[in-house]
Amino acid sequence: MKILVTGGAGFIGSHLCDHLIRDGHSLAVVDDLSLGLRGNIAHLLDRPDFAFHELSVLEPEFDSLVAAENFDCVFHMAANSDIQAGSRDRRVDLEKTFMTTWTVLESMARHGVSRFVFASTSAIYGDVAEPTSENFGPLIPVSFYGAAKLAGEAYASTYAHRHDIASWVFRFPNVVGARSTHGVILDFVRRLIADPSVLRVLGDGTQEKPYLYVHDLIEAMLLAWKSAKPAPYEVFNIGPDSATLVKTIAEYVVDEMGLAGRTRIEYGSEPVGWPGDVPRFAYDVRKISALGWSPSGTSDDAVRRAVHDIVAEQTAA
Amino acid sequence: MKILVTGGAGFIGSHLCDHLIRDGHSLAVVDDLSLGLRGNIAHLLDRPDFAFHELSVLEPEFDSLVAAENFDCVFHMAANSDIQAGSRDRRVDLEKTFMTTWTVLESMARHGVSRFVFASTSAIYGDVAEPTSENFGPLIPVSFYGAAKLAGEAYASTYAHRHDIASWVFRFPNVVGARSTHGVILDFVRRLIADPSVLRVLGDGTQEKPYLYVHDLIEAMLLAWKSAKPAPYEVFNIGPDSATLVKTIAEYVVDEMGLAGRTRIEYGSEPVGWPGDVPRFAYDVRKISALGWSPSGTSDDAVRRAVHDIVAEQTAA
Repeated sequence: MKILVTGGAGFIGSHLCDHLIRDGHSLAVVDDLSLGLRGNIAHLLDRPDFAFHELSVLEPEFDSLVAAENFDCVFHMAANSDIQAGSRDRRVDLEKTFMTTWTVLESMARHGVSRFVFASTSAIYGDVAEPTSENFGPLIPVSFYGAAKLAGEAYASTYAHRHDIASWVFRFPNVVGARSTHGVILDFVRRLIADPSVLRVLGDGTQEKPYLYVHDLIEAMLLAWKSAKPAPYEVFNIGPDSATLVKTIAEYVVDEMGLAGRTRIEYGSEPVGWPGDVPRFAYDVRKISALGWSPSGTSDDAVRRAVHDIVAEQTAA
Repeated sequence: MKILVTGGAGFIGSHLCDHLIRDGHSLAVVDDLSLGLRGNIAHLLDRPDFAFHELSVLEPEFDSLVAAENFDCVFHMAANSDIQAGSRDRRVDLEKTFMTTWTVLESMARHGVSRFVFASTSAIYGDVAEPTSENFGPLIPVSFYGAAKLAGEAYASTYAHRHDIASWVFRFPNVVGARSTHGVILDFVRRLIADPSVLRVLGDGTQEKPYLYVHDLIEAMLLAWKSAKPAPYEVFNIGPDSATLVKTIAEYVVDEMGLAGRTRIEYGSEPVGWPGDVPRFAYDVRKISALGWSPSGTSDDAVRRAVHDIVAEQTAA
């Protein structure tokens, strides 16, 4: 297939490109490199089946590209992926997370692209404690990132139904691995490089969330995408059925960097890391599991592998 | 209280103003008169406790007004209320329904307004047959109006949680009564004034929806609004537990206009009236009923009263 990947130079987007190229698809990547990195796709740039457009989805040239290229499918991965940044500046997620989604869908409808894959998030559920299925309601996001993704889902549903766009919506957990551009692991590693004597942790360390290794996420997406064409709209939770404490992440990072016994880990007093943080979240992933998917390990395993990848990247740099 | 009503010159907004003035509140109305009518609030314009601003929420003067006036509460009724228009031009609901909501919330957060009442819609549920509670999920709208309102709810939830804005979200049914600016009753009446010999109905007449008389709607909203302050976010379905066939509406209108036996009613062959129409919808209204609310009559009664009001208005004009 001829596939457009928005945000294809980003963390998850670039891993997705690797998988799609391996499967024999022909790719165009649109990325404005505001969060993505050319280095993430450098190894693909010379291939005849890969084209890179340094471009924002919000620029008019994006619509011209969709008009000209006759894509079979769009994987829409472009977004502000930094939830904390969206809480500091409320326009960031409105523009980079919601308006990018609206613009992609509008161009697809205008030019007859018939398949849409959307990177949504567990943040649309808000602060709920019980294991949450795709049918859970009401949807009460507490972060501007979650609001923008739910707004994107609302429009994806309507474009799917009104314009016959087969649409796969995947609600992502915390995804970790090489090429991360933000997140708790990268943050800890960078701070320990700067000062190995102390690691100050936001919150009291008891926040517990499901982490998934990036390759497991992409295998889940591609499995659902290949299994059956939605008629026209399907939502899938993707996540492990386990979770990892912030405290465990801190200890893994200190350990991987060979700082055990040398770094003092200091915790805050609040059970929440930042405003809009959801301290505890558990997925019901029976729907994606029924297709035969399971993660390659627990949430702790995913964190351990990602800590290894990220420490290697950051200390090589 | 000092209350801002956006869309206060519109159909539901102007009735809301009448109720709030009667209850002793001081009102400012913002309406750009793109759908609202000065005539709907003409009887309030000279009051000292009523101020009218002919202004779009999307103009910069709106934020200045919120900054200057120290409102206790905003009732956000401004929206594109014509679902069919939103399906012809996909930007209409993005701007008039979603971006107005985002802009109102953003101004409230910036200037510390602490209460928000939002006119949402059953259209956020999409095409579901069973009685639908506020906890129903997934939310799969099939109209651009429904998408824009769900996007608005997503942001209302986040602003409520992040900026301590107590928020009441009301999911409206089809609301009918005097001052309607669109809808099936007004459409039938106007077409019969133009040509009393025949009434052509979109769809086969079997579409069945819950209709609520506008005063019943406003009583439900104000009852919930006075009962308890959300901490910080509450969603309420408002609707009758009965429904009315399109066929019944056609017959009531013909009857009220004295055309029984003279007008030929012609039906289409499809069970759906237009793209994005949800042919059958039933509400679970146990939550608002538990507060002591019930409609003054059935859905058929509401339609009968509204047909009477609208025929009187249109034949007087």
